Amino acid sequence: MPIKRRSESGLPGGRHSLNMGGMEEAGSRNGRILVLYFSRDGHTKMMAALVAEGAGSVPLTEVRLKTVAEATAEDLSWCDGIAAGSPTHMGTIAWEMKQWWDETAQPLWPKVDGKIGCAFTSSGGLSGGGELTCLALQIVMMNYGMLVFGVPDYVAPGQTLHYGAVCAGRPRNEGDREACRRLGRRLCEWVQTLICHRPEYSPLKTSYSRFPPE
Amino acid sequence: MPIKRRSESGLPGGRHSLNMGGMEEAGSRNGRILVLYFSRDGHTKMMAALVAEGAGSVPLTEVRLKTVAEATAEDLSWCDGIAAGSPTHMGTIAWEMKQWWDETAQPLWPKVDGKIGCAFTSSGGLSGGGELTCLALQIVMMNYGMLVFGVPDYVAPGQTLHYGAVCAGRPRNEGDREACRRLGRRLCEWVQTLICHRPEYSPLKTSYSRFPPE
Amino acid sequence: MPIKRRSESGLPGGRHSLNMGGMEEAGSRNGRILVLYFSRDGHTKMMAALVAEGAGSVPLTEVRLKTVAEATAEDLSWCDGIAAGSPTHMGTIAWEMKQWWDETAQPLWPKVDGKIGCAFTSSGGLSGGGELTCLALQIVMMNYGMLVFGVPDYVAPGQTLHYGAVCAGRPRNEGDREACRRLGRRLCEWVQTLICHRPEYSPLKTSYSRFPPE
Amino acid sequence: MPIKRRSESGLPGGRHSLNMGGMEEAGSRNGRILVLYFSRDGHTKMMAALVAEGAGSVPLTEVRLKTVAEATAEDLSWCDGIAAGSPTHMGTIAWEMKQWWDETAQPLWPKVDGKIGCAFTSSGGLSGGGELTCLALQIVMMNYGMLVFGVPDYVAPGQTLHYGAVCAGRPRNEGDREACRRLGRRLCEWVQTLICHRPEYSPLKTSYSRFPPE
Repeated sequence: MPIKRRSESGLPGGRHSLNMGGMEEAGSRNGRILVLYFSRDGHTKMMAALVAEGAGSVPLTEVRLKTVAEATAEDLSWCDGIAAGSPTHMGTIAWEMKQWWDETAQPLWPKVDGKIGCAFTSSGGLSGGGELTCLALQIVMMNYGMLVFGVPDYVAPGQTLHYGAVCAGRPRNEGDREACRRLGRRLCEWVQTLICHRPEYSPLKTSYSRFPPE
Repeated sequence: MPIKRRSESGLPGGRHSLNMGGMEEAGSRNGRILVLYFSRDGHTKMMAALVAEGAGSVPLTEVRLKTVAEATAEDLSWCDGIAAGSPTHMGTIAWEMKQWWDETAQPLWPKVDGKIGCAFTSSGGLSGGGELTCLALQIVMMNYGMLVFGVPDYVAPGQTLHYGAVCAGRPRNEGDREACRRLGRRLCEWVQTLICHRPEYSPLKTSYSRFPPE
Repeated sequence: MPIKRRSESGLPGGRHSLNMGGMEEAGSRNGRILVLYFSRDGHTKMMAALVAEGAGSVPLTEVRLKTVAEATAEDLSWCDGIAAGSPTHMGTIAWEMKQWWDETAQPLWPKVDGKIGCAFTSSGGLSGGGELTCLALQIVMMNYGMLVFGVPDYVAPGQTLHYGAVCAGRPRNEGDREACRRLGRRLCEWVQTLICHRPEYSPLKTSYSRFPPE
Repeated sequence: MPIKRRSESGLPGGRHSLNMGGMEEAGSRNGRILVLYFSRDGHTKMMAALVAEGAGSVPLTEVRLKTVAEATAEDLSWCDGIAAGSPTHMGTIAWEMKQWWDETAQPLWPKVDGKIGCAFTSSGGLSGGGELTCLALQIVMMNYGMLVFGVPDYVAPGQTLHYGAVCAGRPRNEGDREACRRLGRRLCEWVQTLICHRPEYSPLKTSYSRFPPE
């Protein structure tokens, strides 16, 4: 095993400082959200902006919105929660997004355990692999020791985001847009509830309607 | 000679006859399709009928359409190809469908290798776990030694069935209906091409449009 | 206020009390762990006992160990975290376990959001679908709105539990046993850290070795 | 939809010739197997050689063994069956392998339908995501219209390859090595049976033992 975690854990400014943001004094500070994405045709980028908008709608939150070309390991270390978005290419994560997790983030494995993760994707069409791409992103984040989630809520009649937000192409209607926003908001609610110890932000206590009238 | 794994393998008319349909004289007989489904609310049943319709549109084909309550191990043994349909319940196969594979079909494991399988599902909403349910059904069929597939074709602009046919609720529009029919047809085309040795049925030689104009 | 989706939501002691355990006064009480399992051959039962042992090794913890025949919706409502275990049957969850989530737990959907979930399984052999079964259990729990996780730690050289604990048959060696214990312990650590607001329990601060020497 | 399949299908030397190998006169020629892999530490390379050895043990077979740096779209077009191997990186396909499918093979989508695919991987440890990586590779190949399979056989007591061959690190024992060989052999048997129309190669008629004595 090449991982030599224990030996470095006592070094000042070493591993320990990397995850301090996520764990130490989280009870008295803002929640920190990273929206990380890769976009080829601009569709996933549009989704990412909406996810960030949803996250930003929750008080006491800081949001960073970055492409895989912009985001560094420090961004991952900094955040409490991450929403990762990739186009669905051939039924799963685009290689450009995977490369970020394989290389850019790799030095942080497994030093970011306990962060909260979720996923979004733009696929070429309905039933075109979008759910599988979200699941693949969740699988990567679980590998890093994160806790991942989907959203039971319905954002429109017959439209949900149980394993992350999926659009066929770009977000085309209010349901698509709300799915992205809801994902960001839910991520933030879990960060506030679970990491920042503000249980009043639990989705079980929300004032908005999680389920539309039929 | 076939595997000698269980005591009955040497018995005339025993295990060997079970898979004869799928393998022996397939080159000179009709293709055999089983559409197997469980339906609680009637949505998956509507899909199953359409899948069977699509399968039946291919010449030299026999189709059996059965619920998990009706289908026996003999139905599985008989067929060359199977389309399995279940509602999406809690993100994966309904227990009633899983029970069929765990118990009814179990005596045939692994004596049905080489059959061709595909999946369909009705979920509560878009992005509600439908793709994951199709994948779970494919995982079960691969466990049995089958070869599984999805369909690259688009049945309407922005609508495909890359891992099986998925409807949110019942089939609501022509795209939904065509996704079901296309799945059954493709299953039949693979059975004709690969098992019945009629390469002229390959989807790569079809006269219908696999991709709609934009 | 909680969601007002069903008619019972306004009743005192109704839906609201069901999740109170998981969310309300969690900061000042014990963590609550449910180890839920189905076992046919006794292997998953052996694993479940070890998972419960691992969970019980963490202070300030209450553990319930129950089969799907014993566990009720109240057990799910009661717990902060759940470890669900099923044999790998045909590459995924045994129908008996799925039935529990489809029927017994169904009235709680989606009223248990934010609980923490993880999975374990006994499969017939290595590379026999064990990871896929853990993933399927995680998919079900995400459907319920839970946050799910795996464990990056290595429990022996070349042996981990990145998506849950997997044994080929019964637990056969110390690595197998430690994988089960570690899963229960990690579940408890996340419950303490994230739900009970005791950040000192974070796995990033553990005194035990998460990675064995080579 | 950018894909204009029908318009070019009649052009000599165009799309049609690309898949001719897989479909046209397959009944009277050798089966063609591509073993495609990416390897960082040499473990997956060792597995690939064994998969190729297993494929080559079947008569009337040609095998190409190539890295993702060497293999071109022509190799994919040429073959009847493909075994794709990648290390398990962060629980799924290494980006270098994904890049091949996203870019090198992309011009062939969806012109290679009906080829037969399977997967293998080297992961860092048991239960470390190896099955999930095989599944991800199968998902990519299904996206291309291929039929994918796993192997029910046991290669040693308690060791199988139900969703592809998985090694923890390099192949370490005879079970590991036989899993790789068996995968290549099975791929070849399906190509002979289903594409080359030689039903005597069906695994249901093999002379070797598919299941070891207990």
